[in-house]
Amino acid sequence: MPTALVVSAHSADFVWRAGGAIALHAAKGWEVTVVCLSYGERGESAKLWRQPGMTLDRVKAAREEEAKAAARHLGVHDIQFWDLGDYPINLNEAAFYRLVDLYRAIHPKFVLTHSKADIYNHDHPAVTDFAQHARITAQAHGHNPGQKVLGAPPVFLFEPHQPEQCDWKPDVLLDISPVWEKKRAAIECMAGQEHLWEYYTRVALQRGAQAARNSDKSIKHGEGYQSVFPHVVETLG
Amino acid sequence: MPTALVVSAHSADFVWRAGGAIALHAAKGWEVTVVCLSYGERGESAKLWRQPGMTLDRVKAAREEEAKAAARHLGVHDIQFWDLGDYPINLNEAAFYRLVDLYRAIHPKFVLTHSKADIYNHDHPAVTDFAQHARITAQAHGHNPGQKVLGAPPVFLFEPHQPEQCDWKPDVLLDISPVWEKKRAAIECMAGQEHLWEYYTRVALQRGAQAARNSDKSIKHGEGYQSVFPHVVETLG
Amino acid sequence: MPTALVVSAHSADFVWRAGGAIALHAAKGWEVTVVCLSYGERGESAKLWRQPGMTLDRVKAAREEEAKAAARHLGVHDIQFWDLGDYPINLNEAAFYRLVDLYRAIHPKFVLTHSKADIYNHDHPAVTDFAQHARITAQAHGHNPGQKVLGAPPVFLFEPHQPEQCDWKPDVLLDISPVWEKKRAAIECMAGQEHLWEYYTRVALQRGAQAARNSDKSIKHGEGYQSVFPHVVETLG
Amino acid sequence: MPTALVVSAHSADFVWRAGGAIALHAAKGWEVTVVCLSYGERGESAKLWRQPGMTLDRVKAAREEEAKAAARHLGVHDIQFWDLGDYPINLNEAAFYRLVDLYRAIHPKFVLTHSKADIYNHDHPAVTDFAQHARITAQAHGHNPGQKVLGAPPVFLFEPHQPEQCDWKPDVLLDISPVWEKKRAAIECMAGQEHLWEYYTRVALQRGAQAARNSDKSIKHGEGYQSVFPHVVETLG
Amino acid sequence: MPTALVVSAHSADFVWRAGGAIALHAAKGWEVTVVCLSYGERGESAKLWRQPGMTLDRVKAAREEEAKAAARHLGVHDIQFWDLGDYPINLNEAAFYRLVDLYRAIHPKFVLTHSKADIYNHDHPAVTDFAQHARITAQAHGHNPGQKVLGAPPVFLFEPHQPEQCDWKPDVLLDISPVWEKKRAAIECMAGQEHLWEYYTRVALQRGAQAARNSDKSIKHGEGYQSVFPHVVETLG
Amino acid sequence: MPTALVVSAHSADFVWRAGGAIALHAAKGWEVTVVCLSYGERGESAKLWRQPGMTLDRVKAAREEEAKAAARHLGVHDIQFWDLGDYPINLNEAAFYRLVDLYRAIHPKFVLTHSKADIYNHDHPAVTDFAQHARITAQAHGHNPGQKVLGAPPVFLFEPHQPEQCDWKPDVLLDISPVWEKKRAAIECMAGQEHLWEYYTRVALQRGAQAARNSDKSIKHGEGYQSVFPHVVETLG
Repeated sequence: MPTALVVSAHSADFVWRAGGAIALHAAKGWEVTVVCLSYGERGESAKLWRQPGMTLDRVKAAREEEAKAAARHLGVHDIQFWDLGDYPINLNEAAFYRLVDLYRAIHPKFVLTHSKADIYNHDHPAVTDFAQHARITAQAHGHNPGQKVLGAPPVFLFEPHQPEQCDWKPDVLLDISPVWEKKRAAIECMAGQEHLWEYYTRVALQRGAQAARNSDKSIKHGEGYQSVFPHVVETLG
Repeated sequence: MPTALVVSAHSADFVWRAGGAIALHAAKGWEVTVVCLSYGERGESAKLWRQPGMTLDRVKAAREEEAKAAARHLGVHDIQFWDLGDYPINLNEAAFYRLVDLYRAIHPKFVLTHSKADIYNHDHPAVTDFAQHARITAQAHGHNPGQKVLGAPPVFLFEPHQPEQCDWKPDVLLDISPVWEKKRAAIECMAGQEHLWEYYTRVALQRGAQAARNSDKSIKHGEGYQSVFPHVVETLG
Repeated sequence: MPTALVVSAHSADFVWRAGGAIALHAAKGWEVTVVCLSYGERGESAKLWRQPGMTLDRVKAAREEEAKAAARHLGVHDIQFWDLGDYPINLNEAAFYRLVDLYRAIHPKFVLTHSKADIYNHDHPAVTDFAQHARITAQAHGHNPGQKVLGAPPVFLFEPHQPEQCDWKPDVLLDISPVWEKKRAAIECMAGQEHLWEYYTRVALQRGAQAARNSDKSIKHGEGYQSVFPHVVETLG
Repeated sequence: MPTALVVSAHSADFVWRAGGAIALHAAKGWEVTVVCLSYGERGESAKLWRQPGMTLDRVKAAREEEAKAAARHLGVHDIQFWDLGDYPINLNEAAFYRLVDLYRAIHPKFVLTHSKADIYNHDHPAVTDFAQHARITAQAHGHNPGQKVLGAPPVFLFEPHQPEQCDWKPDVLLDISPVWEKKRAAIECMAGQEHLWEYYTRVALQRGAQAARNSDKSIKHGEGYQSVFPHVVETLG
Repeated sequence: MPTALVVSAHSADFVWRAGGAIALHAAKGWEVTVVCLSYGERGESAKLWRQPGMTLDRVKAAREEEAKAAARHLGVHDIQFWDLGDYPINLNEAAFYRLVDLYRAIHPKFVLTHSKADIYNHDHPAVTDFAQHARITAQAHGHNPGQKVLGAPPVFLFEPHQPEQCDWKPDVLLDISPVWEKKRAAIECMAGQEHLWEYYTRVALQRGAQAARNSDKSIKHGEGYQSVFPHVVETLG
Repeated sequence: MPTALVVSAHSADFVWRAGGAIALHAAKGWEVTVVCLSYGERGESAKLWRQPGMTLDRVKAAREEEAKAAARHLGVHDIQFWDLGDYPINLNEAAFYRLVDLYRAIHPKFVLTHSKADIYNHDHPAVTDFAQHARITAQAHGHNPGQKVLGAPPVFLFEPHQPEQCDWKPDVLLDISPVWEKKRAAIECMAGQEHLWEYYTRVALQRGAQAARNSDKSIKHGEGYQSVFPHVVETLG
């Protein structure tokens, strides 16, 4: 089975930003692994913190439960919570080599992660750099010699919250219409961030309309991605 | 049969810059139309002008003969010479509507043309703008109502002579290894610009090596393209 | 009464892109002049052209009627149709001096027009250049000496259809919540482009959410603008 | 009283780069807090080091005295010296949370700090990143739950020494004419960097002339700023 | 004698922007030709137009007299006034070939002209494009065959009025200290634009200070230039 | 004797990317110091790792031997191996001050190092930042007061493996034709990376052809560089 890897800074990012891609490939039999480096327990859980008596551990538990439920809707093969802390995230050496190992364990055919810049979120670009760094290390023949080295899987950067402000420009528009209902169901698992449900539904509709405009196809829902590497192709048609 | 359109400022550009793509698709049965807007009779024919008694008409005739021979090697379906003048090229209204008509006549699945900037060649970016403008007009329902309007064929910009100086960045690398011999044969038809044969052979080898590096595939020769529009896709794998 | 000028390539652009700004200022007593340089009779009237027996004149008449109705909802002071043709638009010398004269006649406090680039619409950036050129000429003391010269009104570029693809980045987010109902009513006058009603309603909601996020204010609907000139201010607070 | 926060890498930066903004708002009753993270004791004190028998402590003491005197001229409410070292500055975790706490303590209405890039000064962009990171953390509901979280104060980047080389582009020009004499008096407190007095006086005059040109107002002295976030406004006039 | 060519949109631009380079090379025996395409009689002559009874011809005559006086101070070899009109400038075909002929007549070793963008002046970038286009045509062997073709003289873009707003970034800083007095004398010939004398004196001091900072040399006055083409060198030292 | 400093991430980078510049200046009597921060023992030694029984120490020894042999061909004055590890490189504080000391010991007239970005190599941009940071610290009067401070040597960034993808744009083209044979001999010392020999030979030919095109000179082999700082010059000719 082909595999894909999603490196998500916080436990909800993979839902809003890549839920369609995950569901689409899972439906075709791909094994998609999602790594949630942080629960987003400090920066993205305002609603939970408004509850009386809330603690860090309870926030984390709630976030994990939400993310797991969403992952089930999307058909995620493996979801991992690395609990590296939040605001700031602690991208330490152990986590680095764990990610290198993961690249080598699953040999993903493509990788999804955050935008290169985000003026609203300091951890997102840090995670992108971290994921890219680990990918390169997994390609090195001298790292754990004898293991099969990683090839050159393309990396796609998913959509940040305010795309223009983050200098993010989508060069790939993915038709997620066939799995939109699954993505919406996953979104609705994010009880702590209900204010974002309609926002990201509108994002999907806008990207869908743009995909239709760029292709003459009938597309209703879409996701945008920015490629890091050039596309190597055998045809332009 | 699917079709493609190459809008070439001068009668040799399609060879150096897109010969691989043309041969590759022609070999698969595509009908590729090449429009040479100018013969490049003033700016790109230094060697011919060094011959005694040379005239504009003789330069044009020699250039047309070279281009036709190259087109045969590449398997071009239709090559047209619009003879719009050179340095400067005269992109007049009649030529504009002729190009609009051509878009509507062949409904290309993709379009190849020049880079958006070129500090060494004033006519190349002018042609790109011209090709893009005509494409948009061919999409308008109110232009010649009743005709079938053009869809949204992607536009790929081929490689200029000094890519970094022209702010051209390839996001698509096309494997042209299977047709390299045809491209080389076409290149060798360009007797008036023999100093470029090895230059563009090296370009093909560099782009091939880069394509291999970005894909884990065994690729020897390549061509680079910069996309104008986002890629609309149904899978990321 | 303070005045503002909107330079709209086609007769619907001012509605989708600047309807909120127009209604907001009109409601405060500003006199807003809208110039529709073209009816968009060829490029933006697909639905009309699908009707049997349609002619250019009938399309133009329908477009004018729609635009006038929208203008009434927004409180436009003066709407002008210059009928310069469509796809391509003919930005001739007479139109140029007419626009210079208009700048001098109304002395707008600000100007709204299109983005600097638009890969989907060749006429939009041409209009932006035209509006900017006329503005500069209206500032020249030697143009019609004796007239009061134009000052330095800021120019704001409104949102194109696919913002990231047009390299448009909003640095100003305008809260249009108080006049949203008027903008929606104006949008609904555009019977020929009904497929865009929900698209631009979602744009308003996204820009509103982003404005709220950037300001701690309760904002529901917004419009984004990109400034051409630096903001001259007396306070940063 | 409204408050503002200036995060200055070295103890003189707030004078050259933001002295006008500080004096202007202080004169209107704002409480402006200035944090000098470093004394610039190694990189910006060449003149002091030329004195015989100079020591790090004496340089720091001289720099603090100069900065305090300047702050008095500008009307700074609170100036803090964090003494984090110089070349390189040590932006450690304790300093990070101290800055987060400061954001939460004063709830600034706007923040001033350095440019995003500076090829002549490695610490300036590091401080910008640090200030931005702390600001985002102060916005997180899960950081010290129960405290009032920070809103979304705009961040303005003040002028580096060689603006074009640092890819800094001012989109805000502040009229500091009313307080120019105060800024000049503060500048003259910087005895150790007398070679910069006229340089930054000329900067003020150039930015003033540019502000006048962009506004039709009579402005003599100015300061330029680059905004990080979009401006949220209720009117364009 | 080596030669240089300055293509100046208006009759004062060569003074403010390139006066130092002209005087420096003239002092070394270079023959510098200055082409003033327009007198700037409409856009840059506000002071003259305030005089009663002023006419276009009188403005032009005054501008020509000023420019000639300045040229004498700078040691210009040949100054030409092409009187192509102002706001807008009329860069017609005859002027185009006249400029091509001039390139071929003097074979300049370098070319100076305007920035690629200028949001305050529509004619400046148009002139840059015009000068670049003519240069390329002068290189074409097929243009007036038999004439000696132009080589590849570097093109340097001089400083616009508000550099950051015009996306102009100097990569060359020229030490004009030895000829500063000549440039100042030339500047003072521009009686109609006295408000700019001090502005451009400050520009020279700032660029001089920056040149010193980038070179360890003692430099007081400078001019900044942006290169269009890469520098071809035989040493990096 | 004038000196130059090359800061090379891995022990082969100085050969592929700067071998021509080194040989050219060495031949003129310059003393060129090369610092190899890492042996590239993990990321760039695939061929060595394919040998049975290979160990880290044996890879390092082989890499050092190759680099020393290449350095001899190029005429390197001093080559240093700092053995900071590979993938990831460990740019620690001791290495930082060692590099500052080296700047102060040799006072290089220019510095060569890597590009600012490299999507294929995480360590290259890290080294560039490190070299730039150390250079600035060496300029600080307060660092080891009493030592002669570093001046302002220009920094040139050499060519990465896939230049366009790394946003690297050469603004300096160096004619290395006179020393090409030495560079080729040095390249052939890199037994472990034989697949790159022809690749970088083609790079030299392409840069040579581009240098010829930009200068009218007969140049066969070249190297491209991107300048960090503006060029301070006394003439434009």
